[in-house]
Amino acid sequence: MTDATEQENGTEGRRSGRRGASGGASARRQARTDAKLESLPYIHRQLEPMDVLSAEAIEIIENNADILMEEVGVVYSDDEEALKMWKDAGADVKGDRVHFPKGLCRELMKTAPPTFTQHARNPARSVEIGGKNTVFAPVYGPPFVRGFDGERRYATIEDFQTLVKLAYMAPAMHHSGGTVCEPCDIAVNKRHLDMVYSHIKYSDKPFMGSVTAPERAEDTVKMAQMLFGEEFVDQNCVLVSLVNCNSPMTMDGTMLGALKTYARANQASIVSPFIVGGAMSPVTVAGTLTQVLCEATSGVAFSQLCRPGSPVIMGTFATSISMQSGAPAFGTPEPGQVLMGAAQFARRYNLPFRSGGSLTGAKLPDAQAAYESANTLWPAMLGGVNFMLHSAGWLEGGLVSSFDKFIMDCDQLAAAQKFANGIDMSENAQAMSAIREVGPGSHYLGCEHTQNNFKTAFYASNVADNNSFEQWEIEGKLQNDQRANKIAHSWLEKYEIPALDPGVDDALQEFIQNKKDSMPDAFT
Amino acid sequence: MTDATEQENGTEGRRSGRRGASGGASARRQARTDAKLESLPYIHRQLEPMDVLSAEAIEIIENNADILMEEVGVVYSDDEEALKMWKDAGADVKGDRVHFPKGLCRELMKTAPPTFTQHARNPARSVEIGGKNTVFAPVYGPPFVRGFDGERRYATIEDFQTLVKLAYMAPAMHHSGGTVCEPCDIAVNKRHLDMVYSHIKYSDKPFMGSVTAPERAEDTVKMAQMLFGEEFVDQNCVLVSLVNCNSPMTMDGTMLGALKTYARANQASIVSPFIVGGAMSPVTVAGTLTQVLCEATSGVAFSQLCRPGSPVIMGTFATSISMQSGAPAFGTPEPGQVLMGAAQFARRYNLPFRSGGSLTGAKLPDAQAAYESANTLWPAMLGGVNFMLHSAGWLEGGLVSSFDKFIMDCDQLAAAQKFANGIDMSENAQAMSAIREVGPGSHYLGCEHTQNNFKTAFYASNVADNNSFEQWEIEGKLQNDQRANKIAHSWLEKYEIPALDPGVDDALQEFIQNKKDSMPDAFT
Repeated sequence: MTDATEQENGTEGRRSGRRGASGGASARRQARTDAKLESLPYIHRQLEPMDVLSAEAIEIIENNADILMEEVGVVYSDDEEALKMWKDAGADVKGDRVHFPKGLCRELMKTAPPTFTQHARNPARSVEIGGKNTVFAPVYGPPFVRGFDGERRYATIEDFQTLVKLAYMAPAMHHSGGTVCEPCDIAVNKRHLDMVYSHIKYSDKPFMGSVTAPERAEDTVKMAQMLFGEEFVDQNCVLVSLVNCNSPMTMDGTMLGALKTYARANQASIVSPFIVGGAMSPVTVAGTLTQVLCEATSGVAFSQLCRPGSPVIMGTFATSISMQSGAPAFGTPEPGQVLMGAAQFARRYNLPFRSGGSLTGAKLPDAQAAYESANTLWPAMLGGVNFMLHSAGWLEGGLVSSFDKFIMDCDQLAAAQKFANGIDMSENAQAMSAIREVGPGSHYLGCEHTQNNFKTAFYASNVADNNSFEQWEIEGKLQNDQRANKIAHSWLEKYEIPALDPGVDDALQEFIQNKKDSMPDAFT
Repeated sequence: MTDATEQENGTEGRRSGRRGASGGASARRQARTDAKLESLPYIHRQLEPMDVLSAEAIEIIENNADILMEEVGVVYSDDEEALKMWKDAGADVKGDRVHFPKGLCRELMKTAPPTFTQHARNPARSVEIGGKNTVFAPVYGPPFVRGFDGERRYATIEDFQTLVKLAYMAPAMHHSGGTVCEPCDIAVNKRHLDMVYSHIKYSDKPFMGSVTAPERAEDTVKMAQMLFGEEFVDQNCVLVSLVNCNSPMTMDGTMLGALKTYARANQASIVSPFIVGGAMSPVTVAGTLTQVLCEATSGVAFSQLCRPGSPVIMGTFATSISMQSGAPAFGTPEPGQVLMGAAQFARRYNLPFRSGGSLTGAKLPDAQAAYESANTLWPAMLGGVNFMLHSAGWLEGGLVSSFDKFIMDCDQLAAAQKFANGIDMSENAQAMSAIREVGPGSHYLGCEHTQNNFKTAFYASNVADNNSFEQWEIEGKLQNDQRANKIAHSWLEKYEIPALDPGVDDALQEFIQNKKDSMPDAFT
């Protein structure tokens, strides 16, 4: 034995492991590409969520938020109706600023459901949002893509559809998402129609609606009604949409318009302070959490003024800021703490919670991208996020959707699903028979327990390369993103469009055409 | 506003952030390279460790381990003395197999200290091992390096010293480690002398001893005595060394020889089952934990037979195995669960715990390497690891020490340190004055609270690039590992050898020369 005892042991394990291998490199590669992950509509976590705030810290932050909501208040801009609704609900409205008596928002939030089902057109894909469930949704918002050639360019509707198809094919992806990239080749006032249609047509997973204008939210609801039926939509959630607060302490008219439209249609919004910490909130975690609490609870409460009992998700999105360059930084420790702290408050208020995702400031799907993405995914999983937007494909601070990174992230989501399952304590998992059978100094590769369990025993990545150096060299010395690129290609080759009722399809297309014909193109 | 609301907000934050920026790209780059992290001798975690096993699961596994320790037992091979010691202690010894009456090991382990200090030659670098403390130590064992040119080759003593220097320069690295790579240019029976000397000479952080033969452990103790004084070494821990179990259920004579030498000299060993799950343990987490418990508690108890009260660390190292290729897989969910479960048992027995590290099977410091490393670092930090071997520089399943990855990992360790600090709830951190001052619709960049706090507010990576795409393009489109490479160079340029008493230095060199002259080179 050398000083490299572990190394020696490791090599030994690898060698003996190989005895069990069959087929050549290409067979193994194929097996990996084809590997079937356990495809679940959503994750039901077995682990208890991890708390980062003490009971005392919770009290302090909540009390501080109460003070600020009364004293500083939240601006509801460009929406007279919202101001009137708040006045009628008992708030003190001065100009466009709403001052909340202590406890008003918490009281109003009580009618919001702790969990709800978002229905997909394929019922097997419907997701349960809230409680111990986690739903993964793709990246949202980038105007650029890095496509198959790695080139960075403005996104098109074709890229949008490619991302919808990849999300449809990904066993670990539960949701089709919303603006998986901005289809910049279509007029701003018309692209929501093509986006919503693409989700309906090319996937059967649940999806998100447009929020960029109240009439676009209305279009989304109408298209959902064509798909699900008017009555069904009024009684069930089929849309989850993203309503960002304009931090600090402001809800703007555009977002309020969308929020009102969806809430009144009994559809869910995610009320999310969007915060670059240090610019849009204080430079501290406790201060940021206080502000998040003011903004999110005010918005969630407002959804209940629109329609009591309508589904809503409390959200937060936080980054830190580089004080050298002014750029936002992702995957740093402080946003992880904000995320977990905010999740704790959502649990306190019995609200579903949105945050997390595979966030990064990296320009390429390199090691920075992976470290930073993992540094958001871990707090999000352990903190107990219910709806995880941006869980795959995000690059460059959200400016870019990357096909390669989408595949890489989905692999991590599948691993996170396995971790969240917790530790199996069944008699089979206790494996007493195996340890008795094998005994000291032997190995477990051939034993009966291993034979019976090996297929589902360990998570097998479809992207990672764990072969020997020599094998990896023979196969072309690929980096992780290059292997992901191949997988993306193979998924698209295998992609088959999920059947859609032709009558519904025709009606949707007619609706879109009429809408488009009714107005000139607008590009802002 | 477009559908990319977050994107818009993000761009806004970035733009306004830039107002605060000063100097050009090179100034910023310089500032980042120079950025002083808070250099602490070790981390005192503020977060409570996370449990993954229920009280019931703990009972089941402990009970199963008790049954197996009695029924199957543990082989103590090639060590008659050890067998006699166990017999005298009340175990049932049959051949070289030791059967433990229920509770014997747990009883013996009670004399092991829950925490202890490992002294460094610079007292400011001494570390506290156990409790809520975490000590980071470098990669251990690789026969290969990837040096500055990225080339993969057999490691030399020069590479060894380079890694010692990088560990010395890294603010987040608390320990100089042991076999940071195998100096393959020196005879196997002599290299331990050069390794121990290199740690003493080129660093003033604490270090590890040789375990590859009892006489090499003795040499290590002698060299430590020259450095610290005989009396001091007998009364204090100055060495932590790695004693791997030969899983399943075997302690071999070489490791036992080292363990006895160190324990009798009052020096710490890490008793670590080294497990490729599915090959050296059952394919299940619960089964692996049961075996880990048998092996680790037997070894820890044996250290207390050697010298009651001597410091010892319970350890575990686990990977999963790819059932397609037989290769070990790193950063997968199951080893993370084993790690956190074993940590829970160490807490139950009041023992310091070793595990974790930035493990990966990747051949390059790419996204695979980063995802997998983060997937070990997170469970290790949240699980409450006290001594984290392999925390930086590990590549290719432990076959390679990488300079670039060492830098990349150290950046992550520094971030983990910040996360582990928990959430500051001081009045300053509550930031009420800031939120009052700024109010709705403005920004925090210029406010007094930000000015007072921005320098320490957020963790600033020295490797990540969060600049704009355009800036990154101008600076050469570097990947994360390329930036790390530059930092490694700059650290070595700034490196200054820490002063060592010339008398001690001479004595050490003389001892080494005499030892080397006393035997022919051996290469196994």
